[in-house]
Amino acid sequence: IPSRLPDVGTSIFTVMSKMALDYGAINLSQGFPDFSIDRTIIELVHRYMVEDHNQYAPMPGAVALRNAIAGVIGRTYGRTVDPETEITVTPGATEAIFSIIAAFITTGDEVLLFDPSYDSYNPAVRLNGGIPVHLHMRQPDFSIDWAEVRQKITSRTRMIMINTPHNPTGAVLSEADLRELERIALQHHLLVLSDEVYERLIYDGTPHQSVLRYPGLAAQSLAVFSFGKTFHATGWKVGYAVGPAALMKEVRKAHQFIAFSVNTPVQLALAEYLQTPDHYERLGDFYQQKRDFFLEQIKGSSFEPRPCKGSYFQLVSYRGISSQPDVAMAEELTQKFKVAAIPVSVFYQDKTDNRLLRFCFAKKEETLAKACEILRKL
Amino acid sequence: IPSRLPDVGTSIFTVMSKMALDYGAINLSQGFPDFSIDRTIIELVHRYMVEDHNQYAPMPGAVALRNAIAGVIGRTYGRTVDPETEITVTPGATEAIFSIIAAFITTGDEVLLFDPSYDSYNPAVRLNGGIPVHLHMRQPDFSIDWAEVRQKITSRTRMIMINTPHNPTGAVLSEADLRELERIALQHHLLVLSDEVYERLIYDGTPHQSVLRYPGLAAQSLAVFSFGKTFHATGWKVGYAVGPAALMKEVRKAHQFIAFSVNTPVQLALAEYLQTPDHYERLGDFYQQKRDFFLEQIKGSSFEPRPCKGSYFQLVSYRGISSQPDVAMAEELTQKFKVAAIPVSVFYQDKTDNRLLRFCFAKKEETLAKACEILRKL
Ligand SMILES: CSCCC(=O)C(=O)O
Ligand SMILES: CSCCC(=O)C(=O)O
Repeated sequence: IPSRLPDVGTSIFTVMSKMALDYGAINLSQGFPDFSIDRTIIELVHRYMVEDHNQYAPMPGAVALRNAIAGVIGRTYGRTVDPETEITVTPGATEAIFSIIAAFITTGDEVLLFDPSYDSYNPAVRLNGGIPVHLHMRQPDFSIDWAEVRQKITSRTRMIMINTPHNPTGAVLSEADLRELERIALQHHLLVLSDEVYERLIYDGTPHQSVLRYPGLAAQSLAVFSFGKTFHATGWKVGYAVGPAALMKEVRKAHQFIAFSVNTPVQLALAEYLQTPDHYERLGDFYQQKRDFFLEQIKGSSFEPRPCKGSYFQLVSYRGISSQPDVAMAEELTQKFKVAAIPVSVFYQDKTDNRLLRFCFAKKEETLAKACEILRKL
Repeated sequence: IPSRLPDVGTSIFTVMSKMALDYGAINLSQGFPDFSIDRTIIELVHRYMVEDHNQYAPMPGAVALRNAIAGVIGRTYGRTVDPETEITVTPGATEAIFSIIAAFITTGDEVLLFDPSYDSYNPAVRLNGGIPVHLHMRQPDFSIDWAEVRQKITSRTRMIMINTPHNPTGAVLSEADLRELERIALQHHLLVLSDEVYERLIYDGTPHQSVLRYPGLAAQSLAVFSFGKTFHATGWKVGYAVGPAALMKEVRKAHQFIAFSVNTPVQLALAEYLQTPDHYERLGDFYQQKRDFFLEQIKGSSFEPRPCKGSYFQLVSYRGISSQPDVAMAEELTQKFKVAAIPVSVFYQDKTDNRLLRFCFAKKEETLAKACEILRKL
């Protein structure tokens, strides 16, 4: 059987989480919280199940949830979106990303991606016959070189994918970035797929630059969000896409046949939970404290942290400790020293290795302290 | 924006369910139960949420659930499957079907489908660049003409999709069908995608002919199942695919980037719930009683039921009442007489209209009685 994705193996997240388990290491690799979620939302899910909300939700999402999302977007980004036509609830942000690509990308279409990039982007483009064109983010700040973007646009370029706050680097795009992206997208009639799953995990008072803030850009963009990240429940697998009605209509055609709909009681629970802004508005402070705790704890070690402006990931350089490749370093750290991290080279199509590891700090202080105690000894 | 699915509109299930709501009609259109699910499984989901099982499940599915599924398959079909490599849990059977097609079908590959066919099959094939080749099931029994299948196979044929028990007709495949399919698949090196979501909704003592019962066939097949159907919770969106390791490896590559994983507490609850065979083994009796109740209630009307051997759908001919097209008939029935059904022509690529409506009998007796009281007056 010829494989449609011959070069794809098991994802690094699965590999490292399993290695952490096998070696009894503290798992700061795969991105997920190790603390309890809010009991309130658990009880809401339970109530909706007991009250018989267990059959198919509408294909684009439960009406109550789409209305609640529109309210949050209005309050957060000052943008009016029509829940009837401009929001689609999906079984996780990954399915939203795939459905958007399936809706618009066809054989020969080029899609611009910025490495390091999340591991689903490239295969999602290829499975739909598209050609991923990988650019590098600039070192050392992981910014985007828009002049290079302009050079790489051809008559076949159809989409640019961005991700802010950025996984794995913690970089965030600025207003100037978004304005330049807007100019490029309008000038070249490009679609923008904006992965904003870490929208609320942004620090030091910086506002999140959603494509939804820029009317010209928003008119050509599909933005993707994640409740798993915002409510600490990555295992619930609920996300959503936002975009103009004409584009969303096409996304829904794909989504309708890829997943159809999303867990009903969970959707209704989220709709009710979103009524209380306190449930999500202070998330930045919550995670900033974790980032700062991790940075303080890793001080005095030979690991050198890079700036983390958003996401729940902290990059560190280990050049002060070892010059081995990052994959070997991650393995040694996990197996010998019992702290698991993600090697950043796996996010590069060409496996560029800047000798960086990614640590997830969405953990209890106790977990972070224990890990850093080990790291300080290296 | 050029559409990748220009001819796709809102699915008939959404259209008819909405019409039922708008006109206050009894909804026997979209396939879903109108009764409560077992409280036991609700409490299990709750317990796993409270016990902090809220982060990513493994990509191929929670280990406990895959083990439980392997046990059920062994008991039910006498087949040993390896949960580690041969089962993948998916966010609904729809995603399983899509991932299987994405894994194997590429530009120019032909896929044989039998009309009437479920509405996601054709677009899933086309989104992956494949060419759906629609054959008709024979009238009046909706059987498959295997001689015609052999005629339609070309050098580009790559897959045959079957569905037993069949939606929308209630037909089931026999042992002879499966043996002939096996011969054809082996001779022409074809993959088989077997949609078996109604595996347990089969009546009158007929055994379900799963591809898993036929070793030669199973070696080239991917079978798809649905917990939503088996546990009356269509809104939970959990299904799974079963197939040989070499094929499943490719399916997982697609699934990994389309959905990644499925709601964790629901998976763990299902794993525990499956430990009690009583929870699923008597499902055939349960629904046979509903079918028989519906048949008895519709007796004395001018609607003429077709044989229903499986699924929770009953086809009826309305030729004794009207000669209008089935879409118009379904609309009139919903709007004027307040009973919603699905017109069968929408399941035909060429819109063949045999003047048949599909009624879903997965309803309380009270609901079915009320609907039939209306139908008897027509
Ligand atoms: C879907 S598993 C990966 C989780 C994640 O986003 C990450 O660790 O980068
Ligand atoms: C996914 S909505 C359709 C449900 C169903 O399978 C049917 O009514 O045929």
